[in-house]
Amino acid sequence: MTSPAHRVGDMAWNAWGDPARPAALSDSALALVRQALGARPHPLPSATESDVRLPEPALGDDAAARLTAAVGAEHVRTDAATRLRHTGGKSLDDLLRRRGGDAANAPDAVVLPRDHDEVLAVLAACAEHRVAVVPFGGGTSVVGGVEPLRGEFGGAITLDLRRLDRLEAVDTDSMTATLQAGLRTPEADGLLAAHGVTLGHRPQSYEYATIGGYAATRSRGQASTGYGGFDDMVLGLTAATVRGTLRLGRSPASAAGPDLRHLLIGSEGTLGVITSVTCQVRPIPDEAHQEAWAFPDWTTGVTALRRLAQSPVRPHTVRLSDETETFVNAAVSGGRAPSGCLAVMGFEGTADEVAHARRTTRALLERHEGTLVDSSAADDWRRSRTQGPYLRDALLAEGVLAETLETAATWADLLPLYSAVADGVRGALSGDGAEVIVLCHVSHVYRTGASLYFTVVTAAEEDPRAQWAQAKRAAGDAIAASGGTITHHHAVGTDHLPWMTEEVGELGVELLRAAKRVLDPSGILNPGKLIPS
Amino acid sequence: MTSPAHRVGDMAWNAWGDPARPAALSDSALALVRQALGARPHPLPSATESDVRLPEPALGDDAAARLTAAVGAEHVRTDAATRLRHTGGKSLDDLLRRRGGDAANAPDAVVLPRDHDEVLAVLAACAEHRVAVVPFGGGTSVVGGVEPLRGEFGGAITLDLRRLDRLEAVDTDSMTATLQAGLRTPEADGLLAAHGVTLGHRPQSYEYATIGGYAATRSRGQASTGYGGFDDMVLGLTAATVRGTLRLGRSPASAAGPDLRHLLIGSEGTLGVITSVTCQVRPIPDEAHQEAWAFPDWTTGVTALRRLAQSPVRPHTVRLSDETETFVNAAVSGGRAPSGCLAVMGFEGTADEVAHARRTTRALLERHEGTLVDSSAADDWRRSRTQGPYLRDALLAEGVLAETLETAATWADLLPLYSAVADGVRGALSGDGAEVIVLCHVSHVYRTGASLYFTVVTAAEEDPRAQWAQAKRAAGDAIAASGGTITHHHAVGTDHLPWMTEEVGELGVELLRAAKRVLDPSGILNPGKLIPS
Repeated sequence: MTSPAHRVGDMAWNAWGDPARPAALSDSALALVRQALGARPHPLPSATESDVRLPEPALGDDAAARLTAAVGAEHVRTDAATRLRHTGGKSLDDLLRRRGGDAANAPDAVVLPRDHDEVLAVLAACAEHRVAVVPFGGGTSVVGGVEPLRGEFGGAITLDLRRLDRLEAVDTDSMTATLQAGLRTPEADGLLAAHGVTLGHRPQSYEYATIGGYAATRSRGQASTGYGGFDDMVLGLTAATVRGTLRLGRSPASAAGPDLRHLLIGSEGTLGVITSVTCQVRPIPDEAHQEAWAFPDWTTGVTALRRLAQSPVRPHTVRLSDETETFVNAAVSGGRAPSGCLAVMGFEGTADEVAHARRTTRALLERHEGTLVDSSAADDWRRSRTQGPYLRDALLAEGVLAETLETAATWADLLPLYSAVADGVRGALSGDGAEVIVLCHVSHVYRTGASLYFTVVTAAEEDPRAQWAQAKRAAGDAIAASGGTITHHHAVGTDHLPWMTEEVGELGVELLRAAKRVLDPSGILNPGKLIPS
Repeated sequence: MTSPAHRVGDMAWNAWGDPARPAALSDSALALVRQALGARPHPLPSATESDVRLPEPALGDDAAARLTAAVGAEHVRTDAATRLRHTGGKSLDDLLRRRGGDAANAPDAVVLPRDHDEVLAVLAACAEHRVAVVPFGGGTSVVGGVEPLRGEFGGAITLDLRRLDRLEAVDTDSMTATLQAGLRTPEADGLLAAHGVTLGHRPQSYEYATIGGYAATRSRGQASTGYGGFDDMVLGLTAATVRGTLRLGRSPASAAGPDLRHLLIGSEGTLGVITSVTCQVRPIPDEAHQEAWAFPDWTTGVTALRRLAQSPVRPHTVRLSDETETFVNAAVSGGRAPSGCLAVMGFEGTADEVAHARRTTRALLERHEGTLVDSSAADDWRRSRTQGPYLRDALLAEGVLAETLETAATWADLLPLYSAVADGVRGALSGDGAEVIVLCHVSHVYRTGASLYFTVVTAAEEDPRAQWAQAKRAAGDAIAASGGTITHHHAVGTDHLPWMTEEVGELGVELLRAAKRVLDPSGILNPGKLIPS
């Protein structure tokens, strides 16, 4: 078992990512946004850390004593700085609340177990003392998944898994690795690199998100066409529950009944705490190549991507921006805006594999009106592929709201879904004549369909939280009405709860509740998330 | 909605497959088996259909009336011939019992609904009148999955889904098709062929097995390296349950909580009756090519397959026989037995795709001590790939027991698992000096591991059912002790029940029970299968 030599630091309490990183918005880009949005935005509050008032910690003495016995006094943190940094995730609504000095839902304590058995002990203590438990990995949730809601309970702790940081095993014959839940991706990949392997899992949250969080939220990385989604990578997992330990997954495939791994994957901390995951790993690729493609318009580009997704040889990364996003990306990076739509194709593997995949991809895309263009757009994407959330903070500082939302559907449903969501958001936000910028790209492709990733930008109004909530509601309703899934890779948390019954049906919700009754009979695990009450 | 022009007929009541097909064992092959097994086998009974005594149908009048109201009188069958053909599946134990005239577990009636709503009505009637319901597709189960066990109930019906035989929808943009559960594969592929597409799902049971059965048992086809397992093909499904209709799966991928499709896939009729499945389909390949490869020995061959499975370009079908199976296959087909092990590689696609995959496969296998040999072994395999069960019947007629069992594990665990199972079976069967032939092949490969498929042949003794049960117990215990899964693609039924708790843990079993309580509160659905009581 090895641990990383260096750990990734905490994110800023009131913004995404590294507090020391400078704002990422050029003057020209800012000027462009201002021009596009027209009206002068409403300034947003910007509380300093010392302005924030946290509620008094409400853990009873008995519960605190049990937690201290479980993990040691230094690993039960009640200081304001730690509690503040576990008050929520990084959705626009989280950021607006933090910037306004609101930390009303701060946990009563942050508890840091060091291994599976300590997690079991914490869960037992909290079940006995009726304290809600919110599992916390990287804290990157953008759907309310890590906000401590108390539900029916008097207190709530955040269970921060950062000390579960070991690479437990590597098997380079079977190409598997067992990784503890609290490893952030750069740490995991760093440990794996010593064995010549990598996860290949690179979502936008790569720098902060954790192995356990990926499994708990059914994450998808930007190279998922090559590496699969995180659910595809999970061979087995271990979860600590209130009822004891659950170990699922013995072999690469099985017909031994329903695949129960898929009950824990995506369970968002409501059924148990995933403490380690045995993942498929891949050789570190010899080469990685990105290239940019132009299509005359969105519809043509989507058709080309469909054909590519249905061919046997595909790039590892496949993305296509609509006309608006293509224009804005070029403007933000200071380049000249092309007409039509740009796509990025990313290839990984040995030199031969990359050469073959590039050749077949090129032949296919050229048959479908694609043109290979200079690689600057692909280079921009590669350099900035974890930067989106920093841009959002830079815009917030200027009174501009920016947020993303995503869905997926079959190819046949994709273009109507695209229009319905974009129209819904525009309708909700521009009721009083405000300008709204809606960008979209296809971010992940499958043989049978694709995901759509929207970015919405508008000037803040007087009540920006209500303003965004209205847009989100319109988007979710449009998705549900158009046959899309309410979330392709952001998970459910609190924000997508209103559409869960529509997504899985009343009986589906009952199945989730029944699983929860088995594993978490007192209901302490992440109350208020995922499962409609 | 279209139905097949011609339907596949019933299987023989006392043997696998087409009753009109002649016995499939050459005199030379039979002589070889006799020579290898030494002792004269114990003759097995061979009852004629008129010898078989079925129990009197035990359905109450009220239940019968409700069923008649639900599906019409002509679709509630109580004649002996129909009941006999629904008394069980096609395991060795099933065949031994039928040959002995034993049909004690015949259903009280065979009910044939024509659509989803009629299935709902049948389930409601049976729940009210406390009648067990055994969903029945092709009747190909080799693990006891379709045997009507009454459990705590006074009566049992078999729900034969053959009239759910429509292709409901095809979407050649999204490459999906919605197929009703009762379609056998040749019927489904026939309907799909009109649209230029195919499932690509070709297990040994291809001719008789059904779409619903594939989903309910988590089936794997022989070309699964190219097409995926059936679970990978399911985009969505509709199930009729005692509590109503469950529809799961909206998009190619989703992060909307646990993937509940995987609770119904593999549920073996214990939670609900899958009535239709929206599957991924593929273009009918322009070319299909099989080739044979020789390896100096099993270990070398397994290593080569591992490297092939972990490479980005792979054949659609990958199989490797151990030395014994290689020898026996050659003998059965009348060829000269090569030394070492033979493998079959199958390629499908456009001419370019097949050429490229053959080229890269050849380069890789040659680097790992493989030799491309004449294609006769591959041709034999292709011609005989659905013939195994017919051979078993031919051997039974000679007093020779033959049965298969299968498992899967990671590559690192595979060779120890292979030895443990073979030794366990040999030890169990040859305690009194009897000869035992144990054949094995790798039948499906994955990046992280592979499946092992064993065929066991021995002379029947006085109590052949007990004789095989002992071997099966030894194999199952060896699998559980060696890190394998108790079943890779045969499912659980009754035969693998003893190892289910080991497979998924006590909490896993509780999760299955909880799902059953939600969807089948009275417990009428396929009692005695899959879920340990």
